[in-house]
Order: sequence, then structure tokens, then C-alpha cells
Amino acid sequence: MSLDFGPATALSCRECGARYDLGPSFACLECFGPLEAAYSFGDVTRADIESGPANIWRYRSLLPVPADVAAKPNMNPGWTKLVQAGNLGKALGIRSLYVKDDSGNPTHSFKDRVVAIAVEAARNFGFHTLSCSSTGNLAGAVTAAAARAGLDACVFIPADLEQAKIAMARVFGGRLIGIDGTYDEVNRFCSELIGDPLGDKWGFVNVNLRPYYAEGSKTLAYEIAEQLGWRLPEQIVIPIASGSQLTKIDKGFKELIALGLVEDRPYKVFGAQAQGCSPVSTAFKAGHEVVQPVKPDTIAKSLAIGNPADGPYVLDIARRTGGAVEDVTDAEIVAAIKLLASTEGIFAETAGGVTVGVLKKLVETGRLDPEAETVVLNTGDGLKTLDAVSGDAAPTAVIRPSLDAFRAAV
Amino acid sequence: MSLDFGPATALSCRECGARYDLGPSFACLECFGPLEAAYSFGDVTRADIESGPANIWRYRSLLPVPADVAAKPNMNPGWTKLVQAGNLGKALGIRSLYVKDDSGNPTHSFKDRVVAIAVEAARNFGFHTLSCSSTGNLAGAVTAAAARAGLDACVFIPADLEQAKIAMARVFGGRLIGIDGTYDEVNRFCSELIGDPLGDKWGFVNVNLRPYYAEGSKTLAYEIAEQLGWRLPEQIVIPIASGSQLTKIDKGFKELIALGLVEDRPYKVFGAQAQGCSPVSTAFKAGHEVVQPVKPDTIAKSLAIGNPADGPYVLDIARRTGGAVEDVTDAEIVAAIKLLASTEGIFAETAGGVTVGVLKKLVETGRLDPEAETVVLNTGDGLKTLDAVSGDAAPTAVIRPSLDAFRAAV
Repeated sequence: MSLDFGPATALSCRECGARYDLGPSFACLECFGPLEAAYSFGDVTRADIESGPANIWRYRSLLPVPADVAAKPNMNPGWTKLVQAGNLGKALGIRSLYVKDDSGNPTHSFKDRVVAIAVEAARNFGFHTLSCSSTGNLAGAVTAAAARAGLDACVFIPADLEQAKIAMARVFGGRLIGIDGTYDEVNRFCSELIGDPLGDKWGFVNVNLRPYYAEGSKTLAYEIAEQLGWRLPEQIVIPIASGSQLTKIDKGFKELIALGLVEDRPYKVFGAQAQGCSPVSTAFKAGHEVVQPVKPDTIAKSLAIGNPADGPYVLDIARRTGGAVEDVTDAEIVAAIKLLASTEGIFAETAGGVTVGVLKKLVETGRLDPEAETVVLNTGDGLKTLDAVSGDAAPTAVIRPSLDAFRAAV
Repeated sequence: MSLDFGPATALSCRECGARYDLGPSFACLECFGPLEAAYSFGDVTRADIESGPANIWRYRSLLPVPADVAAKPNMNPGWTKLVQAGNLGKALGIRSLYVKDDSGNPTHSFKDRVVAIAVEAARNFGFHTLSCSSTGNLAGAVTAAAARAGLDACVFIPADLEQAKIAMARVFGGRLIGIDGTYDEVNRFCSELIGDPLGDKWGFVNVNLRPYYAEGSKTLAYEIAEQLGWRLPEQIVIPIASGSQLTKIDKGFKELIALGLVEDRPYKVFGAQAQGCSPVSTAFKAGHEVVQPVKPDTIAKSLAIGNPADGPYVLDIARRTGGAVEDVTDAEIVAAIKLLASTEGIFAETAGGVTVGVLKKLVETGRLDPEAETVVLNTGDGLKTLDAVSGDAAPTAVIRPSLDAFRAAV
């Protein structure tokens, strides 16, 4: 098997630094720490990137993918809008605010980014089936990408997910297995399945392909910096599910600095959780270095991971950069969804309500500098979590088609 | 009032050619024909366009908008993906097929394009309220754009629309008025409201701003040609609601030819309707030049316009270019949604099922050349019309988190 992962040259352990050949491995044999992609970057210039396609493949020389990746059938996610959010900024008292709106991705969540990288890894390893444990968005991203790439799909979700996420995951074909249990139980089940002959030649995007998959989140960092005019934001608010996205955005910023693509200046990373699933926020506030698992109970189901694998790394990054981790209630999430919608015309899913709600709380409590350039992430789409706004999902009035009826109504 | 509509210099009647000053007018005073924007284009080069932003404003020199349009708060729609649909092409026996996927727009339908132009017209005329009659997608596009532009919104819909479209139209704020009646009755009511003091200073995007609004659909033509490498497709399949989109895509292609931006070569335009609302298809097949209104009954609610204003123009374009107008049943629409999803990972709304279903029917009946380069439009998002696939919107199996349970299920 001849592998081509472009600039990625090895896997390395995030805990002990042990190095391994590129393969479908995810845990260190020495210390059981998580593995991640290690690179040998060539010369990468702004001009090279700017001449690339309007999707994540413009950054292919910074990702574990072959140089010809853009020529193969995939979903071509990314290059979503960085929206200058003047109205929301005014409402919250923040001078310079941007929303990175990943609802513009093909299946309307940031998961298309990570899955696109995993598809390339699955091709490299000769896997025939693409799989995952998912809180919903990932299931749709995986089944869509598998359909287009010509791979089989079999994805696993908690059986009680939002109807829209279930429908979307089914429409692309493949098998969708509901599990009676939490996401954490689904995840454990998938780890078992990898060791079983049933799961042979299966690429679980967020388990045995995780070291590749997770790198896709770096593209959020690259895009934000490039869209700001090759500049790092001073503050960024990122949702926390497993915590992987936050750690990879930090990794992306550091790579841009190391490669001389942006000026090296300080940035603060803020993590956002729902109060009904806030193990990282709880640990941050208590000054702990480890994260105590919880059983989730929140409307932000896409963030409902009670045992976040990257929790300790998130704590470290928030503390190192001078940021924080905060959480908001379900009511605050709904209010934030409506605030973002009515100021900027962006309909976020509950995870976007979490980040905007936390942004509001951080500025109100003085932990976020209202004068500093700030980016807040919306990672999903309100159409997938309609229940959150269903209390207001009816016309303001229903009338006969006559001017008199309209006069009476207004 | 100093107006700035960029290259647009007048309104002209599509029937008798009478010319009028730019204003919030929509019908010819001589013959009651519809008015449209007339231009005096300067030199427009490919390089100018290519150096523009990744949204419709790259074509601002071909649209009725001021040169600084991109600097004002708007939704910046467009530059959606032209997906090379090799899998779908193989399934249908078409050699070179592309899907223009407008579900990637900010509110996930092509309506963001037309509304963005209407917002500029509303600003020009000093209107304070943005309004429309809508089958659903337009309502969300208008309320979102109004929120971001700082305008009030009051939109009108048939009261029985899909839940997702109602929720989306509400979340951005403004008033959402349900009308007990069909879209055509909603539309007539809006025309009355324009003449009433209640509607003073209101911009009805698809009534008194229609000559500007409708021009937004030309951007679909421009993008398709540019994304093909500055080349017109040989065949294109377009959905028909009012018929405006189809006529403006044809106008866009002709402008590109006239400006020397693409080679002048023949293209065939095909129109697609749902059988439950197929007045244009019926007229096409009968050889008529006028369209007999119908009362719609189809799951493709976004195309459910029984009295399509641009019907006669559609007939003329289909006949002149050697195309056709065809319709498909609700069952064929659902099958086509699933076919597109399972081959290309694109989840279309019912209108996309109509175009893909018609594409299939046209190639099967020999009216579409399977060897010619073909583009099919998906103008909306499957998440807004979930009912169409709700029969399959459950997991394929629900199990306990154990290998034994999984073995038993597969």
C-alpha cells in the first residue's frame, strides 16, 4: 500500500511525543495518549494559497492530503463567510465583531471540513465503509461524503436526536443505526466495533481516522486569518463538544505564525458550553486540570459530549492564552439564537446559540475586551434544531386576503 | 432623491418597449406590460469580474446596483458551488452533468440573490419596510436581509406552508402574516396593499421592486458560465414558479454573449414543473402561446404558482432555443430528491426534485442530448421540505450499544 498524505510525515503522541508511521492508529502504544498528524511543511506562501480553490483545498499544503485532492469527488467544504457583524457588535457593545458562519458548508455544519480529510485517509487505507459516532451533524456529513466518494456508510447516533438530523443522515443512503444511549455510549460502542471483524476495513472518521479527521478543523483558523487580511483575531469564541475543534484552531494559528504567514501577536481563546453539559467549563472555573465526565441534558445536542476527549487540552489553551471557558443555560441559548438572527440574518443551530450566548456573558462580565477584534463561531444550522425556536414558529397573524382584515391585524 | 442604480439607466416595457425613468414602478402605463431594467454597460472584462468578491457583487457592473454595493450590510449571496455530478450523470446516462447548488446561499435558497438587489432598490427609494408575497423561501430571505440591512419587514405567505419555512421566516424578526388562501391570492392582496396608505414606503420585493429584484436571477447565468470556464452550457434545466428565473437566466446568457465574455453558441433551455402545478408545461405541450391558470396541488410548494406571470416568456424561450417544458409527479419528485442525495451528497428541496426528475424524464424520452454539456439547478434546501422524505426519516435500526445487538441487526 503506497500512502500519500502530502506534507504529513508521521503520527505523534500528544502526551509523550512518540512517533509512528502514518496508519489507521489513534492511540499511543507507549502511554495511550492521542495521536495527531506531524508535518514537514515546505515553503507555503500567501500567493500559493490565494490562487487555490474557494474551499479548504486552498490549504492542501498544510493538511494530511495528497496534492491532487481537489480533483477527486468530495464535498469541497469550507471558505464559508466571515460575516462582519456590526449590528450584533452594537447590540453587545463590541467594537469589531465577526461571525464565522459554517452553516454555509454543504451539509450545513463544520463537520464537512473534518470528514473531507477523513475521506482522503479512508481512500489511502483502502477502507470500503465510512463510519462514525455522531450527535447528528457528523452523521449527515459522513453519509453525504460517502455517497459522493462512492464509499459505503454505516453511522451510529443516539436514537433521540432531532428529526431533521435523522432525516438528513438517511437521505444520502447507507445505514443509520440508532443506539439506545448517550453519545458517550455510542462512542464506546464504536471503539469496540473497530476491534471486531465486523468493523474490518471500516474507517471510523472520529476514531481510527481521528488523527487525520481532526486536522480539518485547522482550516477554520486558516480561513479566519486569511479573511481578516492575513491577521489573527485578538479574541475568538469556540464551542466545545469533544474540544477537538478548539485545540485544532489553536494549532492552526500557531502554524500560520511559524510559517510567517501572519504576524505573531497574542490571541485569547474562549471556550463555550451549554450549562446542561459543561464539564470543561466546570473544570476551568474550579482550577482543575482534569475534566470530570457528566451526563448531558441540554438542547444543544451537537455539543452534548459528557466525556470530552480533548478537555484537558482546552483548559490548557484557555489558560495559556488568557481566555476562559464559560457556559449558558438553554434559555440563554434560545435568546442568543434569536439575537443573532434578528441582527445579522444568520439562523444558527443551538451550538451557535451557545457561542453567541457565551460571548454576551463574557463581555458583560468584563472577561472579553469589547475594544479587541473578536470572532465568534457558528458551526451549524438553525434548520436542524427547529425545536429550539418552535415556540415562535407560527405566523404573527393569520388573516383573510383583504385590506380590512390586515388593518384589523396591525 | 438622488438615485444610483449603477449601469441601469431606465425601465423598459417587455411588451411595447416604452421607456420610463428608474422608479418603484412595475407595469407599463401604455400597455400594462411588465417593466424590466435597461442598461448601458461599460467595458466589462473577465479579469474585472474575477478580481471581485466571492459573491454576486463580482457582477455588480451588470446589475442595477451602485458600485459600492459590497460595502453595505447585506447577505452577500451567490458564488454557490457548480458541482460536477459524475455519479448522477452515470445514473442517468448523461456524459457531462453539473448541479448548480443554490442551497449554499445564506438562507439556503436562490431567493437571497434577488432579495439582495431589491434591498439596494429599497435603499435607493428610501423605503423603510421590506415586504413580499412568498411561497416560503422568499419570506426567509426577505426577513433575514431586512434584519441585516436595518429595515423593517412584513411578509405574507399562504398559512399552510412547511413548518421549517415558517420558523425560518419568523426567527429573523419582523411581521409574518399568514393568509388563508393560495399564493396567487396572497400576491393579489399585496398588489392591493401597494395602492393603500398602509403600504406607503414599503418595498414589495416581487411587486413594486420587481424590475430590480428579478435581475438578481441573472447572476445564476453569470456564475454558471464563469464556473464552466467562461463557456455557456449546451443544455440547462430550470424550475418554473413565476417563470422569472428562467427568463432572467436566458437574459444573462445573452448579455454575456453581447459583451463578448463568452463565445456565441446555441444553448437549449428546459423548464421544469410539478404535475400538480404545471400550467406552463401544459401550454407548451398543447402548442399554446398563453398560459391557463390552475389551482396548485403539489408537494413542491415553492413552485406552486398557478398563474405564472412570466409563463408566455418561458414558452417563447423554450421554443426558440429548442428546449422544452416538462412536469413530474410528486412521487417522481421524491425519488429524484433521493437519487440526487445518494449520488452526489446534495439534499435538495422539492424544487430540486422537480428539476432532477424532469432531467431524468427528458433524457429517457430523448429530448435531452446525453452527450451535450448539461446543467441542472437545485434552488433550495431539503431541510426546508422534510415532509417529502419523512417516510424514511428514521434510523434503519435502533439497538442497544452492544456488538451482539449490532450483529443481530445487520
